[in-house]
Amino acid sequence: MAAEKKVPVILVTNDDGITAPGIRNLVEAVKGLGKIVVVAPDKPQSGMGHAITIGLPLRLHKVTFFDDLEIEAYQCTGTPVDCVKLAVDKVLHQKPDICISGINHGANHSINVIYSGTMSAAVEAAIESIPSVGFSILDYSLEADFTAARKYARLIVEEMLSKPQEKHTVLNVNFPIATPEEIKGVKICRQAYAKYEEDFIERVDPHHRKYYWLTGEFVNFDEGTDTDVWALANHYVSVVPVQFDMTHYKLKEQLEKTWTIVS
Amino acid sequence: MAAEKKVPVILVTNDDGITAPGIRNLVEAVKGLGKIVVVAPDKPQSGMGHAITIGLPLRLHKVTFFDDLEIEAYQCTGTPVDCVKLAVDKVLHQKPDICISGINHGANHSINVIYSGTMSAAVEAAIESIPSVGFSILDYSLEADFTAARKYARLIVEEMLSKPQEKHTVLNVNFPIATPEEIKGVKICRQAYAKYEEDFIERVDPHHRKYYWLTGEFVNFDEGTDTDVWALANHYVSVVPVQFDMTHYKLKEQLEKTWTIVS
Repeated sequence: MAAEKKVPVILVTNDDGITAPGIRNLVEAVKGLGKIVVVAPDKPQSGMGHAITIGLPLRLHKVTFFDDLEIEAYQCTGTPVDCVKLAVDKVLHQKPDICISGINHGANHSINVIYSGTMSAAVEAAIESIPSVGFSILDYSLEADFTAARKYARLIVEEMLSKPQEKHTVLNVNFPIATPEEIKGVKICRQAYAKYEEDFIERVDPHHRKYYWLTGEFVNFDEGTDTDVWALANHYVSVVPVQFDMTHYKLKEQLEKTWTIVS
Repeated sequence: MAAEKKVPVILVTNDDGITAPGIRNLVEAVKGLGKIVVVAPDKPQSGMGHAITIGLPLRLHKVTFFDDLEIEAYQCTGTPVDCVKLAVDKVLHQKPDICISGINHGANHSINVIYSGTMSAAVEAAIESIPSVGFSILDYSLEADFTAARKYARLIVEEMLSKPQEKHTVLNVNFPIATPEEIKGVKICRQAYAKYEEDFIERVDPHHRKYYWLTGEFVNFDEGTDTDVWALANHYVSVVPVQFDMTHYKLKEQLEKTWTIVS
């Protein structure tokens, strides 16, 4: 029996909102690799982490932003994670073959994976047994140059679709600020222990009441040359495979041995 | 030189909001173990995951809810993660010796660790090198009976404070619905692969437009007897040590060997 080649279904989402240049660049980058459906937030949702909407109902509207590319698109009032859940249940009525999220305007390397709505959408897909990739570029600007990012995003999605993936696979991909010629290649990395050292700026409002703005300086505490932060600083595209079993197995063993209140 | 015993500073937060019975029960449970300071959200923040507030300023107000216990307390307009950051920078002006979060009204076992504001606050503390514990009870009711939870929360915080902890230690503790007599003890566990099988209920509003409510049925796909879900079903208090390095090391090795686009 001749195998008929099935067109893969590609779900695209993000956290910067459906009108962000990043998601449009991602859609254009993977166009032709399958049947693309976009379900993305109707407004920016940066820093939403793995938030879901519990106490409010969600709305979902078909939009025309991607009509010129002949791609079906929906905006949702919820978080990036809500978008993935709602897309599977109410738009696709099936699990897509892959879920891709981004391209986020701003880095999601190191600890940022935990705060990132882009990555949380990808992790949500993986929890739902949909292989997924979150893409981010180290450039917060809405005018970021996506040329190299587009090239490598397509290569990575092609790689993912070319062979069967473990169903919980989720990759955190970051692109350096570089031209395609400057990029040295793709590196599989571990998450660096690098984070923002926070500082809240205190101000006083016109009604004489204090308020605080979160700011921070990014500090890399990790000297490894196998991390995403190292790879990006050295002009590689970084790929960190991510898992959602957050058990700290080494500490588990240690507590079992040392805790006096354990049964 | 005789060592002077330092009174430990205990930061308390939650995601159900500062007026929830759970946080009051937690404060009462650990009273006397150190200098307690409460910094918690001014409204329910369930399901907020690791969300942080980026685009809006934060407010912080001293409140009198815990005056009867002679405990300093602040409410914050942000997420549970914001509360931890702001508490360290603008309330305590130092890292506390421990951060405890909860007691959450509702289970945070298995995959719920990722969606939970309670656990995200604890994880945030651990990222900031503050040992921490998130506590949750398998009872969503505001009238939940916290008798057993209080007993074991105190035992666990005493255990944590009794010896030096690795600075990134974070524990996910869940209490079964049970009396102190019914509880068999404390079990160190791994995170079960168990999750909600989601379903969105579709309704039509008075203006004839559709909206969706997230609902779900909890399903345990994990047959292990070393998981938090197993422990809770068998009347144990479950303790899962959590880590925030989300790298999937096994998959990392595999991708390094099999990906053709790797440098």
